[in-house]
Amino acid sequence: MGSALARAFTAAGHPTTAWNRTPGRAPDLTTVTRTETVAEAIEASPLVVVCLLHYDVAYEALRGAEDRLAGTTLVNLCNGTPAQARAMATWAAGHGARYLDGGIMAVPPMIGGPDAMTLYSGDPEVFAAHRDTFGALGTPLHLGADPGVAALHDIALLSGMYGMFAGFLHAVGLVRPDGIKATELMTLLEPMLRAMLPSLTHAAEQIDSGDYDSNVTSPLAMQLAAFGNFFDTARDQGIRPDLLTGIHTLMSEAVASGHGNHDIGALIEVINV
Amino acid sequence: MGSALARAFTAAGHPTTAWNRTPGRAPDLTTVTRTETVAEAIEASPLVVVCLLHYDVAYEALRGAEDRLAGTTLVNLCNGTPAQARAMATWAAGHGARYLDGGIMAVPPMIGGPDAMTLYSGDPEVFAAHRDTFGALGTPLHLGADPGVAALHDIALLSGMYGMFAGFLHAVGLVRPDGIKATELMTLLEPMLRAMLPSLTHAAEQIDSGDYDSNVTSPLAMQLAAFGNFFDTARDQGIRPDLLTGIHTLMSEAVASGHGNHDIGALIEVINV
Repeated sequence: MGSALARAFTAAGHPTTAWNRTPGRAPDLTTVTRTETVAEAIEASPLVVVCLLHYDVAYEALRGAEDRLAGTTLVNLCNGTPAQARAMATWAAGHGARYLDGGIMAVPPMIGGPDAMTLYSGDPEVFAAHRDTFGALGTPLHLGADPGVAALHDIALLSGMYGMFAGFLHAVGLVRPDGIKATELMTLLEPMLRAMLPSLTHAAEQIDSGDYDSNVTSPLAMQLAAFGNFFDTARDQGIRPDLLTGIHTLMSEAVASGHGNHDIGALIEVINV
Repeated sequence: MGSALARAFTAAGHPTTAWNRTPGRAPDLTTVTRTETVAEAIEASPLVVVCLLHYDVAYEALRGAEDRLAGTTLVNLCNGTPAQARAMATWAAGHGARYLDGGIMAVPPMIGGPDAMTLYSGDPEVFAAHRDTFGALGTPLHLGADPGVAALHDIALLSGMYGMFAGFLHAVGLVRPDGIKATELMTLLEPMLRAMLPSLTHAAEQIDSGDYDSNVTSPLAMQLAAFGNFFDTARDQGIRPDLLTGIHTLMSEAVASGHGNHDIGALIEVINV
């Protein structure tokens, strides 16, 4: 991801200096200046973008160079929790740095393209000052002054993505024993998933209104009745049921607590601990 | 769903006779002929379409009317397992009926529209004879002569859909405590999911080739390192982790068994029992 970010910044004409945790894996880009130390990289530019495995690795990398942060804008794109983002904003302010927290909703090959959504939160003026630079990476969105809100959306959107991947993997697992290829299945699954996106919006509208009794399209009790077939088919095809058990548990509890005639959005009513 | 099917058939100009399990819930369509008994409904038409909760309900409804099935084409659209579909094909043949098994990959409001994919399997000549009639419901696809293959795809595609719903629900659950509406989140989640569809194809290609070492975009060990943040955020926001645990379990096992440098498609290598 570091290589992809550096490539996108330089491609957009921004002089870019890179420090890489593992020197051998530094991006092979002649347009990027390399430094031996984090301190040199921070000094090279008023905008410091951090993209590492997680917050602990980021703190470790910045240790010893904190005194160079004063006056810079630190943008942390590591995956983390909202609480970690807020704590790092306080830490950065203590060292005299402006701080934005961000999340990259893309895999490296998407960086620089229009589908690469990047999320930011923190002081809106700081975001505005660097918005054009962030545009080199993809489509930048500012979600709020609370430094934690980008991380919250990052984790929420990635959860949505992992759900889609889990469904895909279970589906592929089911058909493979019959000699059906994953790419063959995708010719049906991709249009199916696209066709079902409006159903997510329908569920979102029911959740927001709290009205689960109007415009019901597929009652949970009926959906739950089919789940025995899902587990039987998983067993018959020799695959583990793990990727289905979570939603089955919530569906069972939602039906048991009176949501049998409601659509799947009503599962949100039993998701709280 | 029965109402939606009857409405679509009559809208396409096909004389339609309906028997409904619960008389009070019969479709309120003046263009549909009603019968008091299943036997009368079967006698009314050479094509008999069954859409009930599951196979047991279908057998129960047809009980006593089996002798009317000879010479008809029975199309069963109930949700069921491949094994149930094959057993009903044998049962129908025993009563002198042609048999197609099918699955409707749509919710009722989609029926009749171009996004309503309907899957069929069984004798290809029988499918060809009724293909135009099936076209009234949506886009009909014939998947093979094995009567079980439509049910297999039905369950696989619905599993994919449930994964997408599970991800959506977890994402909404995370942001709601901060006062963010589900429809607001959807303005980000929908483009995110659309943008990630090519990643499913990428995973499918890796799965089909068995080559997980080329074109790696997001190594599992790195993804797994972020999962602590997912569970911490679920806890901080007060929601249950159920919808994430399945994929986390498989991801942990895939990394432990040597797939740490591979993309998420490698999870298919640990999905078998």
